[in-house]
Amino acid sequence: MSKKIASARISEKSSKLLQDLNNSLPFDKVLYREDIEGSLAHAFMLSEQGIISKEDYAQIESGLKEILGEIESGVFKLDGDDEDIHMAIEGRLTEKVGDAGKRLHTARSRNDQVALDFRLYVQNNTKAIAELLLENIETLVKVAEENAETMLPGMTHLQHAQPINFGYHMMAYASMFKRDYERLMSSYERNNYSPIGCAALAGTPHPVNRQTTSDRLGFTAPTLNCLDTVSDRDFALEILFNISTMMMHMSRLSEELILWSAAEFKWVTLSDRHATGSSIMPQKKNPDIPELLRGKTGRVNGNLVALLTVMKGLPLAYNKDMQEDKEGVFDSVRTAILSLQVLEEMIADMTVNKEAMEAACMVGHLSATDLADYLVKEQGLPFRDAYHITGNAVNLAEEKGLDISELSLEDLQSIDERIGEGVVALLNNRASMNARQSEGGTATIRTLEQIENLKKWLDSQK
Amino acid sequence: MSKKIASARISEKSSKLLQDLNNSLPFDKVLYREDIEGSLAHAFMLSEQGIISKEDYAQIESGLKEILGEIESGVFKLDGDDEDIHMAIEGRLTEKVGDAGKRLHTARSRNDQVALDFRLYVQNNTKAIAELLLENIETLVKVAEENAETMLPGMTHLQHAQPINFGYHMMAYASMFKRDYERLMSSYERNNYSPIGCAALAGTPHPVNRQTTSDRLGFTAPTLNCLDTVSDRDFALEILFNISTMMMHMSRLSEELILWSAAEFKWVTLSDRHATGSSIMPQKKNPDIPELLRGKTGRVNGNLVALLTVMKGLPLAYNKDMQEDKEGVFDSVRTAILSLQVLEEMIADMTVNKEAMEAACMVGHLSATDLADYLVKEQGLPFRDAYHITGNAVNLAEEKGLDISELSLEDLQSIDERIGEGVVALLNNRASMNARQSEGGTATIRTLEQIENLKKWLDSQK
Amino acid sequence: MSKKIASARISEKSSKLLQDLNNSLPFDKVLYREDIEGSLAHAFMLSEQGIISKEDYAQIESGLKEILGEIESGVFKLDGDDEDIHMAIEGRLTEKVGDAGKRLHTARSRNDQVALDFRLYVQNNTKAIAELLLENIETLVKVAEENAETMLPGMTHLQHAQPINFGYHMMAYASMFKRDYERLMSSYERNNYSPIGCAALAGTPHPVNRQTTSDRLGFTAPTLNCLDTVSDRDFALEILFNISTMMMHMSRLSEELILWSAAEFKWVTLSDRHATGSSIMPQKKNPDIPELLRGKTGRVNGNLVALLTVMKGLPLAYNKDMQEDKEGVFDSVRTAILSLQVLEEMIADMTVNKEAMEAACMVGHLSATDLADYLVKEQGLPFRDAYHITGNAVNLAEEKGLDISELSLEDLQSIDERIGEGVVALLNNRASMNARQSEGGTATIRTLEQIENLKKWLDSQK
Amino acid sequence: MSKKIASARISEKSSKLLQDLNNSLPFDKVLYREDIEGSLAHAFMLSEQGIISKEDYAQIESGLKEILGEIESGVFKLDGDDEDIHMAIEGRLTEKVGDAGKRLHTARSRNDQVALDFRLYVQNNTKAIAELLLENIETLVKVAEENAETMLPGMTHLQHAQPINFGYHMMAYASMFKRDYERLMSSYERNNYSPIGCAALAGTPHPVNRQTTSDRLGFTAPTLNCLDTVSDRDFALEILFNISTMMMHMSRLSEELILWSAAEFKWVTLSDRHATGSSIMPQKKNPDIPELLRGKTGRVNGNLVALLTVMKGLPLAYNKDMQEDKEGVFDSVRTAILSLQVLEEMIADMTVNKEAMEAACMVGHLSATDLADYLVKEQGLPFRDAYHITGNAVNLAEEKGLDISELSLEDLQSIDERIGEGVVALLNNRASMNARQSEGGTATIRTLEQIENLKKWLDSQK
Repeated sequence: MSKKIASARISEKSSKLLQDLNNSLPFDKVLYREDIEGSLAHAFMLSEQGIISKEDYAQIESGLKEILGEIESGVFKLDGDDEDIHMAIEGRLTEKVGDAGKRLHTARSRNDQVALDFRLYVQNNTKAIAELLLENIETLVKVAEENAETMLPGMTHLQHAQPINFGYHMMAYASMFKRDYERLMSSYERNNYSPIGCAALAGTPHPVNRQTTSDRLGFTAPTLNCLDTVSDRDFALEILFNISTMMMHMSRLSEELILWSAAEFKWVTLSDRHATGSSIMPQKKNPDIPELLRGKTGRVNGNLVALLTVMKGLPLAYNKDMQEDKEGVFDSVRTAILSLQVLEEMIADMTVNKEAMEAACMVGHLSATDLADYLVKEQGLPFRDAYHITGNAVNLAEEKGLDISELSLEDLQSIDERIGEGVVALLNNRASMNARQSEGGTATIRTLEQIENLKKWLDSQK
Repeated sequence: MSKKIASARISEKSSKLLQDLNNSLPFDKVLYREDIEGSLAHAFMLSEQGIISKEDYAQIESGLKEILGEIESGVFKLDGDDEDIHMAIEGRLTEKVGDAGKRLHTARSRNDQVALDFRLYVQNNTKAIAELLLENIETLVKVAEENAETMLPGMTHLQHAQPINFGYHMMAYASMFKRDYERLMSSYERNNYSPIGCAALAGTPHPVNRQTTSDRLGFTAPTLNCLDTVSDRDFALEILFNISTMMMHMSRLSEELILWSAAEFKWVTLSDRHATGSSIMPQKKNPDIPELLRGKTGRVNGNLVALLTVMKGLPLAYNKDMQEDKEGVFDSVRTAILSLQVLEEMIADMTVNKEAMEAACMVGHLSATDLADYLVKEQGLPFRDAYHITGNAVNLAEEKGLDISELSLEDLQSIDERIGEGVVALLNNRASMNARQSEGGTATIRTLEQIENLKKWLDSQK
Repeated sequence: MSKKIASARISEKSSKLLQDLNNSLPFDKVLYREDIEGSLAHAFMLSEQGIISKEDYAQIESGLKEILGEIESGVFKLDGDDEDIHMAIEGRLTEKVGDAGKRLHTARSRNDQVALDFRLYVQNNTKAIAELLLENIETLVKVAEENAETMLPGMTHLQHAQPINFGYHMMAYASMFKRDYERLMSSYERNNYSPIGCAALAGTPHPVNRQTTSDRLGFTAPTLNCLDTVSDRDFALEILFNISTMMMHMSRLSEELILWSAAEFKWVTLSDRHATGSSIMPQKKNPDIPELLRGKTGRVNGNLVALLTVMKGLPLAYNKDMQEDKEGVFDSVRTAILSLQVLEEMIADMTVNKEAMEAACMVGHLSATDLADYLVKEQGLPFRDAYHITGNAVNLAEEKGLDISELSLEDLQSIDERIGEGVVALLNNRASMNARQSEGGTATIRTLEQIENLKKWLDSQK
Repeated sequence: MSKKIASARISEKSSKLLQDLNNSLPFDKVLYREDIEGSLAHAFMLSEQGIISKEDYAQIESGLKEILGEIESGVFKLDGDDEDIHMAIEGRLTEKVGDAGKRLHTARSRNDQVALDFRLYVQNNTKAIAELLLENIETLVKVAEENAETMLPGMTHLQHAQPINFGYHMMAYASMFKRDYERLMSSYERNNYSPIGCAALAGTPHPVNRQTTSDRLGFTAPTLNCLDTVSDRDFALEILFNISTMMMHMSRLSEELILWSAAEFKWVTLSDRHATGSSIMPQKKNPDIPELLRGKTGRVNGNLVALLTVMKGLPLAYNKDMQEDKEGVFDSVRTAILSLQVLEEMIADMTVNKEAMEAACMVGHLSATDLADYLVKEQGLPFRDAYHITGNAVNLAEEKGLDISELSLEDLQSIDERIGEGVVALLNNRASMNARQSEGGTATIRTLEQIENLKKWLDSQK
């Protein structure tokens, strides 16, 4: 069977190099399932509309289903010299069912076929990633729940700032993943429109029914304008951006896990299942997973830049440059899925070293702000003045080699006599943490409230 | 008044270089309106909650409103050596109203203040850009309506493919801008949560009411977790991505306008108001605007990459790296707004050279697909066979120096005798265009339907 | 044999997901040749220094050479569950030669081994790409030589500007590729330093001789500081940037080839070997190659962004994030090599349509500048005044439906009487082109000079 | 005088929006010095060649020098409505010297003028940045020299690995900056060719002497091909990439300074001059400078991506898109210069906490590799076997709560009796460090050698 049927007027044989450059089968074979799914819906519509006969449809249907089985069982190997997955499957179909197979391509073009297959892939994987985000949120919420009283130094500028709890810290990441989930689902809805029936760029004169294929494939409706449709890769850009933002969040969590695993912190211990050793230093236990996740941020950003660059300045409608749309998306999707799976497992398995975290709270005068707040609330000082007095108290503690929470009332009053009796209790770290009761704050009671809210939200998504 | 009050424990004077590096006033002064708006809402809440007195609030309110006037009239110049816009305004307020001014910062931190101001800026400009998109869509729809019968060669690979109409072509861009609009509005909703009250990273012990400030500032609700809130720049990334995608669309339209303005096409003529000359070649008339718009795609992509890179691997919560979040956003927003304004004016003013477009349709055998479609529909040939016959007809036309639509019935039958009488009419370009009546297709009647749909949608957005 | 020997202290079995994430064999197997080459040099040095025995070396040498043969013949398949290519080869060696194989890793670490293999790969491929650039320059020079009198409209802003020749145009691309070549060779020299012997990060206590391995592997010298060496990926960034810049040049040539292949230009015809058809429009002949080359600019830029992002903010020395350094480089190298090969073939095979180019020179008043130049040179007018008079002449030609070169002396003098007899000849397009005799200019004589210069340079590189 | 002389044929007045979009004076005024320098050289050449009179040249020369003074003293403000810096200066010149001023633009075009000015800017700033790199290297070398015996834990994966000295660590950064310097100087040489005389795109018919201007401006020679020259922005891409790579190095050093300033490390203390406080937490001292430097990596990467994107797919020669080439370069140059200045000051002023570093060396069994190396070197074990024995020793130390260097000979022999007497001394951390005497290794003696080498190199660059 001819491998290159799309070339009625090209007389000379293609250059071998052109084929190497042009053939997309080595990567677009990933789309085999979407291609078959799309062709089944298209053929069904063709027969419903009387464009092909019921018999043709029956043959096409059984042929395509056989091919799906052959691919998944490895009988039909997608490593031949077909130009792409679409030709590979159509060629195989024609081998199987003859003329009926040749009729499958009626009223469609490679342009809308590719647009359909790729969009189905993106929509399916958008949901798969969203699903994994929910699982990660569940795990984070679980760890948060167990640690709503585990105190650690909240940081800004990687400097100890105020006492917070580890549950609250985990909930920050749960909140990020919630936005990532919402972003993906919003992209899903916005792009859930069916390209098939747009043909090359202008629609088709065949009496197709685009609503039928749209319904059958789970889309909201057919797209509005066919010229736009065959040129549109916004859905691909959206999933790339959504993954980049999600991986950025993951890189932040990874950075923290790497820090917390360092000898200087020892706030968490990753499970042995998630660490590796050194080929030369037998004492090493390395946090490879968070390092790899952090590193993969570069890769997914690169894929986003690549497609934004490809699309820049392309005239309508389809241009071959757009064949460069897929590999980056496939790579980012694979990366996202594997990363979310491994992250979830690692978070669930890690050990939280509560004592080390709590001990660290005695470094850095974490409750200094509470002194300033006291002076404002109880003594009516302007904040800026209270701030200066507190600075002096910190200096005194430093001189004495103490944490501010260890200063006595006398010490404090030596700085400013307006400091009254209640202060010493306020400067205790746990008191300080639990004082932060504003909505969304770190007080254990507020953290538990956040956990409850997120659990309800999780339930609502199922 | 001290310009550097945020440094109680830092004894030595700052390095001049640190100040050059650190001070953000030269660019964050753009936020003056948002800063005052945010402070007004915060002070109102403080007084409602009894955290500051009504008198203090009254002074703060009138002080801030005066400052707003002073800035907008140029009396208060934002070019001093204040560290940032927040200190500049607070300093000025304290000059004006004394201790009341010092109380304004109660129960907030620079971290939540910056997060608030920046988010308000992004939300306001998201709406401004969305508004301009609607105006551009309206103009495109208007041009489309005037040109639903203006025929031109639809292209793929920059090769003539099938006859379409210019209205249909404009509707492709209107469809892209519609998605851009929806993407922006979806980001608006997703990020419309109030950061204020989160303080440094952990919430505040003051009895604030975050719902009050949220309501007053037009947010949906307060954010869920304060640690996340002061670290979150997703809203900034979203507007950057949304602008990049929109500018990518604009770069495609620009590329086409540049091509169509070339001597080889002459399909449109840009108004003299939107063209420039050459300093050395007096005969030149250059399409500078679309070239600049195409070029600006690079800039906005760069801004997106910059922030994705900045955020990568940052531990929670606020890190100074995040000061790098703003300039790129300000630049992309300015670029988007100016670009949309100039594009709208240019599209409204350009001349569509209908004759040139129509003449071009006689080049390239645009109706070749119609012959193939005829053979399939009327003669029941498999598509792949019809395709080969059509290739032969194209070759014959080429040999005769004709367009396929100029071949006689005899010519056609010499290739395949199954070609019947009705074909000659089908091969007429306008007939070919109007045959493409599938939903979303280029037939004038379908184009008008798309225009109607989009007009209804436009009405629904107002 | 154990597949995971680098983990003396990790008690639990690795998570399957960690292995999926961590194992680099699926992509780093590309390095098998460099790994064996590096190990041979290392083992040779070890035996020279008496660190291993001559017998051990003999076994290692013959073992590694066997393995090289096994890999290249497909006997030893690199698709097992080894962690990476280094473990795969070392494991196989130990199977073959026992304890001698275990001694190979003496005085080195995975860190310097990886740094060596990867650097060898980059150096080898830098040269391979440079070689292909020379071939492309040769082809461009050849086409230039054949077309130093082929006139076409030089463009700015995609508007006809001044007459130039096609040889001159090709020489612009030859000049770009010359810079690309120089950039690659400069990177080659700058990075031609040997990492091996740096061990994990601090050097080794074994009495190694880094000069021996460096010499044996063709490096200039060992690197200066081992901590830097195992952390350094500048060489990888350089090849990524060099490829991005080169592909940017190629994207510009591709854009022009696409334009020139359009029906509106028809200035070149790509060979049938380098074009493809449409699956639905049998009359189409699409310039797929230049479109793909243009598209691949996105991909290589993405790879550059990816690695810049990965390396950002990594503390010294090796971090696992750096495993993300390779795939992008492999991909950009493959892309560069295939692109250069196909470009060279396409340029060599394309047909230059001289008549179409020359005909296009009669559109756009290409010699207008010559009138201005005449007024300056012969009549002593300030340039700005001459410019205005020329503008008037262009307007007159437009009114008459003529090109400026077709205006009579009377026409010209009706605009300004200082215009003398010699002007009409000057306004001839070929005269105009050949008047541009400044160094580097488009006059045929100057173009031929550029060709000669570049040929000499080509000879000097061989 | 007309502000828009480059528009002989454009009849209508420009749109205000076009002017906003088009005018580059607000940013390209940075080039005033280069523009005047370039015009002086051009005018000199014109008079030498007899193209303009000596009198005209004298007027132009004195006029331009006056303008330079006016700009630098602030008398001539560059904030008018001129289109760009070139028109602003030429307009002012014509106001001053009349017709002579109008003759300045003879034999040049805006295209080669812009190419010249921008290239001069890049060349000048390449040298300025290179100079600052040398200063930073000097400071790093000085700190290294003072700390060649200051021991700290060398890290991989942010895990303690082997003992190194702080001088050695600083020398790693000195090595990176050396490469950055070499990269810049290599770009300088490669791009040091003169664009002037290329005119619009084709050269000029005037009898110019490009060698004269090239010599006068310090270039190596005129460029080869004028079409390439006016389209070439490789020099701009190179400086952007060179800065990105340099800032990446700086981001790594910054990351380490941030870590080392954290309460968990306290290995260095930044000077108060280089730290800032918190607006709400008076006890904080934040490492703002390294955070900002780390953040600025994003910005410079963004600028690189922007220009790569702008240049993609532009047909020859000049296109207006290329006006987008400058702002990013100006921004990256400013960023690089300020960053290098502040980094040098900060490194020179920071305090190295030697005791803290040394104490940290007792954590993590830093000398474990020495045990393995001993077993290989002295007992002839294969490395892989030695590695397993060492793992057991580490486990024993952990069980006993000791560092491996604290194990007794009996402890060690209980693991493997082949461990002999000399081992205990070898396991001492300083002994371990100084054992790493391979070239480029961390032994103090080797570090001092590296320092000497780099000092010699520094001298050779002056």
